[in-house]
Amino acid sequence: MAQQIGIKAALEEASKGYAEGGVPIGSVLLDEHGAILGKGHNQRIQKSSPTLHAEIAALENAGRQKAEVYRKATLYTTLSPCSMCTGAILLYKIPRIVVGENVNFKGDEDLLRERGVEVTVMDNHECKELMRRFIRERPEEWNEDIGETN
Amino acid sequence: MAQQIGIKAALEEASKGYAEGGVPIGSVLLDEHGAILGKGHNQRIQKSSPTLHAEIAALENAGRQKAEVYRKATLYTTLSPCSMCTGAILLYKIPRIVVGENVNFKGDEDLLRERGVEVTVMDNHECKELMRRFIRERPEEWNEDIGETN
Repeated sequence: MAQQIGIKAALEEASKGYAEGGVPIGSVLLDEHGAILGKGHNQRIQKSSPTLHAEIAALENAGRQKAEVYRKATLYTTLSPCSMCTGAILLYKIPRIVVGENVNFKGDEDLLRERGVEVTVMDNHECKELMRRFIRERPEEWNEDIGETN
Repeated sequence: MAQQIGIKAALEEASKGYAEGGVPIGSVLLDEHGAILGKGHNQRIQKSSPTLHAEIAALENAGRQKAEVYRKATLYTTLSPCSMCTGAILLYKIPRIVVGENVNFKGDEDLLRERGVEVTVMDNHECKELMRRFIRERPEEWNEDIGETN
């Protein structure tokens, strides 16, 4: 149930991103009680940002937090996290992440698991459909976002 | 010689950060000809940012770039990159990084090397002294920056 609420909030962010013409990936950071610490969506197109992936945007929106807060938090993201976002999760020792889907892109989940992060993949239909649509519509921008050549 | 110019530019960024009261870590991204694509310094204190580490700030300052550009670039940073910045280097497949020092903090250099990134550590005296001073003066903010408890 908590997972459904978390992924729904992340998906709302992803949908906002799509409506803005952006890469439709959303993320929320929840505290130990399930309250939202921060939320965000990918800003590559909107802000010409190569680093504001959804997870980074959610961490940024949460602002400066003590180490203890991150260590009890859960990060939700609509898509499997890339290497950069994986690294951010490792930096702050976020113990649990919930991933909407990893069919359209699979990031560094194995490294997360190796380092002790609990990774749950929901295989969420809406997450998959939204991402699939964007990749079909804007393949060049998608490749740019994951550092791939066109 | 190229390395001296690159690390000098990164150190100038770090010194700006220190003068602003921030975490004194600086970074520059150079293209294949040694021209600066982007530069920046840690913005935790100045912008209350948990994600604008120096390397992320330099990538952000460089703006949206094609995959091909990153793949010929070199990233200079005054301090060994944390997991997040390591992940950003891996995302964009930056093939070479030059690190001012890894005595005050050693990040995920081993992972970078495992994945084929050329990592050069300069053991630069000025980088070490500036960082050492900051850690002595502001240990709590330093710990926060690397996700450690106080």
